[in-house]
Amino acid sequence: MSGPRVASAGPLVMSTIRIACLQLAPILGDVEGNRGRALDAIHRAAADGAGLIILPELASSGYVFADADEARACAEPAGGATASAWAAAAAELGVVVVGGFCELDDDRPYNSAMLADPSGIRAVYRKLHLWDREKLIFEPGGAPPPLVDTVHGRIGLGICYDLLFPEVTRRLALAGADVLVFPTNSPLLAPEPEAAPMEVAVALTTAYQNRVVVAVADRCGTERGVDWVGGSVIADPFGHSLAGPPDDRRVPSMLIADVDLAQARDKRWGDRNDLIGDRRADIYGDL
Amino acid sequence: MSGPRVASAGPLVMSTIRIACLQLAPILGDVEGNRGRALDAIHRAAADGAGLIILPELASSGYVFADADEARACAEPAGGATASAWAAAAAELGVVVVGGFCELDDDRPYNSAMLADPSGIRAVYRKLHLWDREKLIFEPGGAPPPLVDTVHGRIGLGICYDLLFPEVTRRLALAGADVLVFPTNSPLLAPEPEAAPMEVAVALTTAYQNRVVVAVADRCGTERGVDWVGGSVIADPFGHSLAGPPDDRRVPSMLIADVDLAQARDKRWGDRNDLIGDRRADIYGDL
Repeated sequence: MSGPRVASAGPLVMSTIRIACLQLAPILGDVEGNRGRALDAIHRAAADGAGLIILPELASSGYVFADADEARACAEPAGGATASAWAAAAAELGVVVVGGFCELDDDRPYNSAMLADPSGIRAVYRKLHLWDREKLIFEPGGAPPPLVDTVHGRIGLGICYDLLFPEVTRRLALAGADVLVFPTNSPLLAPEPEAAPMEVAVALTTAYQNRVVVAVADRCGTERGVDWVGGSVIADPFGHSLAGPPDDRRVPSMLIADVDLAQARDKRWGDRNDLIGDRRADIYGDL
Repeated sequence: MSGPRVASAGPLVMSTIRIACLQLAPILGDVEGNRGRALDAIHRAAADGAGLIILPELASSGYVFADADEARACAEPAGGATASAWAAAAAELGVVVVGGFCELDDDRPYNSAMLADPSGIRAVYRKLHLWDREKLIFEPGGAPPPLVDTVHGRIGLGICYDLLFPEVTRRLALAGADVLVFPTNSPLLAPEPEAAPMEVAVALTTAYQNRVVVAVADRCGTERGVDWVGGSVIADPFGHSLAGPPDDRRVPSMLIADVDLAQARDKRWGDRNDLIGDRRADIYGDL
């Protein structure tokens, strides 16, 4: 009666990994300054023992562009200075770095994120689901969110609003992701931050429903009048927050948590259930 | 770039409906007594103006069966006394009644739920995803969760653990559901109830991700040593709890909330987004 099991994941090189989510305050248009501050934060996280380090969405450039030309002026190719610097840091420090950057390809700007490990850039992903004025500025992505097998686990990568789509998160989990990472810029839509932002609830629930780690690196720092949720969080595979959201969500902070990837590879629940094996693909087909 | 829109729903007969979730304490094996208490509660809810009234899972029979034979002894056909009484109440009161009952068909017990409106029984659904010892007792369902168009909205119906599967909830939302209802029996797995049970977080997040109302009627009342989460909740289409979980989750209670179904039929978010229209079915296909 149960659906097909996930394709078996490779053996775990390290079962417990330390994750850092870097809630930064990029400055719009200050690509060099943002690169330097992000590198500093990556070094601090690695010094604290983090093996998987996540930066916000558009950490290279800031977010509140007036138009596509302004984004284009901040954009870099996937092999450009920012992505190369992050990849070099990943190699130097022996870590995995994930971060959002403003990508230029064929003169078109994309809201992208890259994943680098010590061997180099492993994936560049262009945001599929564009939020609000992003639709006026960026080209939408044309390929599914990637799943990358690293020494720090099998990592699925989306960006911000992508997290709201179970088509993204469930598929990455079914493909065998241990950790879902979301570089994020969540504009504050309500005037006052709620005690428990829905963005955080979605991260926790996604972890719980799929028995995966979910790590969100949001941003802070008012930009052209826009404030941010500051909803960075690291959720364990049972839907509990291990770190975040920060007490003061409006200032830069670094969330650190140790997660046991073996928990994410064991979908059993009690003696008779399996969160993935219980799927009734015979009824609703594969996702 | 966007996926197909949901098939257009019919015109709303009533935009605002009042929902009641009845958190009851069925007594194991007391089918007649449970029927009477459920009918009393249905009448109280209708007297309070509720148009959509939801009872827990297995409200006819109780839950903690020792074996399939014990369930069989409490089970009734879909046209049996309990379902007929609930349907008669729906007709008499002019309401929609949804409730879980122990169904017998071809000598096999099912963990089922029915939906009745004033015209009679509109749907009988057999739980697809069985939890723990249910697998030793019940036959699993063989058909997808139903979506029923009523004068109180388009209602999608699942049971308890089904709520954890986006394959159930997302599909019902994409099919045009305004309200997802979940007769539920959530056994308390941890010794002490958490302040914010994950079961409630899943209901709120599901509402938020799909812009639908989610109504969960859980149970209470210790049964053979098993306690319950008591996580009944009515979530609006923005993921806010309109009612529940009850302050004291261990006693019977009735949650009441008014919901505007027009909110669930408008998936737009700001000027440029649409929670369903933004889906990238061109990339990941239909769910």
